[in-house]
Amino acid sequence: MSANTFGTLFRVTTWGESHGPALGAVIDGCPPNIDLSESDIREMMDRRKPGRTKTGTARREPDQAKILSGVFEGKTTGTPICLVIENKNIDSSAYKPYAELYRPGHGDFTYDAKYGIRDWRGGGRASARETAARVAAGAVAATLLKRENIRVLAYTRALGGITCKEFDSSTIEKNPFLAPDIDAARQMEKRVEEVKKAGDSIGGIVEILVCNMPAGLGEPVFDKLDAELTRALMSIGAVKGVEIGSGFSAADKTGSQNNDPILPDRFGSNNAGGILAGISTGQDIIARVAVKPIPSIAKEQNTVDKNSKPRTISVKGRHDISAIPRINVVCEAMVCLVLADHLLRQKAIW
Amino acid sequence: MSANTFGTLFRVTTWGESHGPALGAVIDGCPPNIDLSESDIREMMDRRKPGRTKTGTARREPDQAKILSGVFEGKTTGTPICLVIENKNIDSSAYKPYAELYRPGHGDFTYDAKYGIRDWRGGGRASARETAARVAAGAVAATLLKRENIRVLAYTRALGGITCKEFDSSTIEKNPFLAPDIDAARQMEKRVEEVKKAGDSIGGIVEILVCNMPAGLGEPVFDKLDAELTRALMSIGAVKGVEIGSGFSAADKTGSQNNDPILPDRFGSNNAGGILAGISTGQDIIARVAVKPIPSIAKEQNTVDKNSKPRTISVKGRHDISAIPRINVVCEAMVCLVLADHLLRQKAIW
Amino acid sequence: MSANTFGTLFRVTTWGESHGPALGAVIDGCPPNIDLSESDIREMMDRRKPGRTKTGTARREPDQAKILSGVFEGKTTGTPICLVIENKNIDSSAYKPYAELYRPGHGDFTYDAKYGIRDWRGGGRASARETAARVAAGAVAATLLKRENIRVLAYTRALGGITCKEFDSSTIEKNPFLAPDIDAARQMEKRVEEVKKAGDSIGGIVEILVCNMPAGLGEPVFDKLDAELTRALMSIGAVKGVEIGSGFSAADKTGSQNNDPILPDRFGSNNAGGILAGISTGQDIIARVAVKPIPSIAKEQNTVDKNSKPRTISVKGRHDISAIPRINVVCEAMVCLVLADHLLRQKAIW
Amino acid sequence: MSANTFGTLFRVTTWGESHGPALGAVIDGCPPNIDLSESDIREMMDRRKPGRTKTGTARREPDQAKILSGVFEGKTTGTPICLVIENKNIDSSAYKPYAELYRPGHGDFTYDAKYGIRDWRGGGRASARETAARVAAGAVAATLLKRENIRVLAYTRALGGITCKEFDSSTIEKNPFLAPDIDAARQMEKRVEEVKKAGDSIGGIVEILVCNMPAGLGEPVFDKLDAELTRALMSIGAVKGVEIGSGFSAADKTGSQNNDPILPDRFGSNNAGGILAGISTGQDIIARVAVKPIPSIAKEQNTVDKNSKPRTISVKGRHDISAIPRINVVCEAMVCLVLADHLLRQKAIW
Repeated sequence: MSANTFGTLFRVTTWGESHGPALGAVIDGCPPNIDLSESDIREMMDRRKPGRTKTGTARREPDQAKILSGVFEGKTTGTPICLVIENKNIDSSAYKPYAELYRPGHGDFTYDAKYGIRDWRGGGRASARETAARVAAGAVAATLLKRENIRVLAYTRALGGITCKEFDSSTIEKNPFLAPDIDAARQMEKRVEEVKKAGDSIGGIVEILVCNMPAGLGEPVFDKLDAELTRALMSIGAVKGVEIGSGFSAADKTGSQNNDPILPDRFGSNNAGGILAGISTGQDIIARVAVKPIPSIAKEQNTVDKNSKPRTISVKGRHDISAIPRINVVCEAMVCLVLADHLLRQKAIW
Repeated sequence: MSANTFGTLFRVTTWGESHGPALGAVIDGCPPNIDLSESDIREMMDRRKPGRTKTGTARREPDQAKILSGVFEGKTTGTPICLVIENKNIDSSAYKPYAELYRPGHGDFTYDAKYGIRDWRGGGRASARETAARVAAGAVAATLLKRENIRVLAYTRALGGITCKEFDSSTIEKNPFLAPDIDAARQMEKRVEEVKKAGDSIGGIVEILVCNMPAGLGEPVFDKLDAELTRALMSIGAVKGVEIGSGFSAADKTGSQNNDPILPDRFGSNNAGGILAGISTGQDIIARVAVKPIPSIAKEQNTVDKNSKPRTISVKGRHDISAIPRINVVCEAMVCLVLADHLLRQKAIW
Repeated sequence: MSANTFGTLFRVTTWGESHGPALGAVIDGCPPNIDLSESDIREMMDRRKPGRTKTGTARREPDQAKILSGVFEGKTTGTPICLVIENKNIDSSAYKPYAELYRPGHGDFTYDAKYGIRDWRGGGRASARETAARVAAGAVAATLLKRENIRVLAYTRALGGITCKEFDSSTIEKNPFLAPDIDAARQMEKRVEEVKKAGDSIGGIVEILVCNMPAGLGEPVFDKLDAELTRALMSIGAVKGVEIGSGFSAADKTGSQNNDPILPDRFGSNNAGGILAGISTGQDIIARVAVKPIPSIAKEQNTVDKNSKPRTISVKGRHDISAIPRINVVCEAMVCLVLADHLLRQKAIW
Repeated sequence: MSANTFGTLFRVTTWGESHGPALGAVIDGCPPNIDLSESDIREMMDRRKPGRTKTGTARREPDQAKILSGVFEGKTTGTPICLVIENKNIDSSAYKPYAELYRPGHGDFTYDAKYGIRDWRGGGRASARETAARVAAGAVAATLLKRENIRVLAYTRALGGITCKEFDSSTIEKNPFLAPDIDAARQMEKRVEEVKKAGDSIGGIVEILVCNMPAGLGEPVFDKLDAELTRALMSIGAVKGVEIGSGFSAADKTGSQNNDPILPDRFGSNNAGGILAGISTGQDIIARVAVKPIPSIAKEQNTVDKNSKPRTISVKGRHDISAIPRINVVCEAMVCLVLADHLLRQKAIW
């Protein structure tokens, strides 16, 4: 219980189901006197909307977060900021056939196991739609980071087995997969077409880069900055793995290969991914997350119904082929929330 | 700040530095009427001690946690349990030469950046010795899990580039690397000798398996069971990556490959790693962590001192070659803490 | 910061300003499968509305909380319940003259001191209107308590210097002051008329009674049940003092007078007010709060403006003469929130 | 559960029973680079020790808190400070006769109701001895307040029905009751002798004064500074009521009497007790607590044993006649903890 709040000082509480009247977030602890408008939030939310990319659903979700409190004459007042996003044009009928079924790879079974009740309309609280509230809140956190000149960027490292070999940041916004490698992006396009035809879906890897980080943010022991970032990213539904800096490749390295030499004005490398002993070094933070394929697929799968009777299921409807790249901005939002929180925590150091 | 407490209902607060008089943990929220003795705790702590394995330091740390409160006539009373572990035979002289230096791969630089002060003796709070308190607390959590028949086991998947190809659980306790593959263990032994001679260190991968999990534990959204486990594991100093179930390999799979079919009495596979939508499925939980090589190496490295002057450093002393396998029981402890907490949280569901 | 959330397991986060578009509450941790409808909430909110009583403002506030999430087919799902109350017919013009002034007895000065910015419209976040969200959330808590047969009742012990000498519970809902003494109620009516004519306001004492309490709720040390109740009640704007059981009169008693003898089937008295060592005894809980007079008065007062220039102020508008009896249901709501939380906390005991 | 931690940023976790080997506190969130020694703590603890005053037990408790962590070369490091106080010369035999009895006015019955187990030795966790850890932690908080020149002072307003009529601060430390009125102190002395002869005990009122408060500390809504202070004080075992500023007398006042006029350089009065809308005004904070008589009395009382059989009890041993004035420094400590926490919270405002 009490599990819908995130953060220690910059605290976000989200609420809402996929097909309820609305969903949203309450931000408590945002400092006063920060410029904030609904259009600041829309900008980040627009990057989450489908239709912008080739992996996305054809559904329209022109999301707009309304600010219901905490802002007066264009400035935050230090009191809670409530953001509400209406769910428009809801039609739950497509989900009706699965109301008694457990869709493989979804939370249907586990919600029933935990709560003994489940809102099956659109996946209820377990829907990826829940991340809309995260992005709205993340947009507020991003305004704090901007004041410190910190930039957070997520892009696609791999999709459907195709891995980017180059990193050209100027390419990212120019291809529908947010890949920093234009050749890889072309191959991804073909891969997506194949998979779509096959009634299947694909996963991939998103990389998150934070530039202009100050040194000294984070807490030792349990609230290490890397621990908090990985938790934040792992709390996004489709994520199955997280690594920082050299990550899993560190397992194969020696200490002399993995340690970053310290030079008078900088570090000699960044295997640490910008964090040592849970505290930022001042280098760029680098994290990568493994994104599983969307579990809703047209291909027939074996499952059971609520009474444990064997059934087959073929999930119809306008589903994404991959959570990437719509998930990228969600990763950015979660990283912004963690960093805004730790900025405030560090202020309290005295 | 306030970052040394872990858990929501089963809460652990740790304290203490490597070379201070003692370190320990306070457990708040342990249910009453549980049998608990110092020998219950010793058993788990013994598995952390060095000298048992070939990668370990030759130092002796015959750790014994004393119970100072919360237990009466052999039973917990529901009040806080304070565990204290004395630091014996401390000699900080070996660290004196590095008091003004920033050891690469360590928290020396970041602690100074954060706090403007640092206890350099034995690494202070940033030392891996801090995990002794985690293991002591984890042993208490393990007593709760035992009552529900839940078992947590960590073993070595890879070390210094050598990966286990088989899984024979009976082998784990029979080789000094806690590897479930006896052939791999033999190769690891050779690898360790080479690295030791070279004055270097190695990393690896630890896998954690949880058996007899009940379905329905965990929280949706931010406190997902996988998010909490990831954070718990990532908060261990040497860990650079965490994955659950199919983990990073999910990135290359299709939905039809990665979804676990649901059969009337079980799941057809376990790519989920026992967790869907942040809630346990009742299958085994499977997690893997990437462990970086020990940063303290004899090989000379470039660094700077507090005044940014370039220096070289060769860390002498009796350091482990790898955090594996001493870190394995720390992983178990952290997983135990998360699961005990979520067991209690689920009780509060009503 | 982060100060708008209340509770450990049954957690309520409120937001909203007096003259913003809306205010509301998010309840996280409400158990699933509880019957809940908007009319359950309206019933409690109606008891807060003005116009019902002679001390109340003539303003109309036909408050209606909408449930935006967490309820499916009339039952709670275990996910966060968002309640929104629209602010209708807002006219901030009456507050415009005080935008640069600090009203004595109000938070105008302290909000500026803390935040350097203040929403002056209707008192902003510091308005008593904030308690509407508390009552809406309290109504949800009350549904949990009803399942355990626990009843919470707040009535007026004293108003404007007139103290009830009798306790006749049947009288409470039959007089406009919610007094359990009909003679006292008549005197209160006269007192209110006098004060109204004088352009002044009055305070009083509210008593809260909890019947059918189970023994064993509460936590020793910092989260004692009495500590949590007093904090909850003291967090209501107009409250200046709280006492439990014999309260301040205990200061004049001897131990033999104040101790409650324990008999085989009951306690011989209830000076404890139903709580010993922070844990409920199973007797009725009795608390009393001192309510200060409404600070907004027509009588002229000395104050300063933002630039510290001396000014006089006479607060016009339709203000209540006393926070009593509208505050009574707010006291009930806060007590319900504390008890629901401790009911859940006790479940987690195992 | 999890109820032994206090504070948001300056967090204190206490542990330990009256007759266990030791008790103590862990402080997490104390800023780094603060001078701190064991003698700083002893000074405040000495003011709690018995024998200094005429109401106190003849028992000797030469308490000394040892610092086990978080301090290096005389300065705090920002990591957790563990304080341990040994319980010396413990003899639980005096409590043996009451092991199966419920002492009236004590937590014996409620602990059993909550936990189903109880450490009867010296009252276990419910003993007033628990406050030793609060005072040790409060001494650390006091060092922070001193840097801001904030002073916290608790003195006796009334004892056994005798109320101070004057306030002469120079008198406080010169009489054994810490009363600011020397005539009252003389009467208190007689009253104590009478009560002692009668085998009874007495209560009283403690007033807490905070000087040199900065304006702007505290949080609106639930964590109001007065709400937090009230909870802190009410969490002390013997306290049955708390009031701030005009407190319960506000109930009888009109708005024009109770409002504090604001003048260009100060407030015209201090009925607010230094707090408006939950935030400090910069005036002195004034709080008063009602302290119940010590429940352990020699006079015979009715009670029951664990099996609900009627019994009589006469509590023998060296008990205090009143919690006052030993409780005074505990009140100071709790106020220091709240203020240190809010100082840090205000830093995080940005």
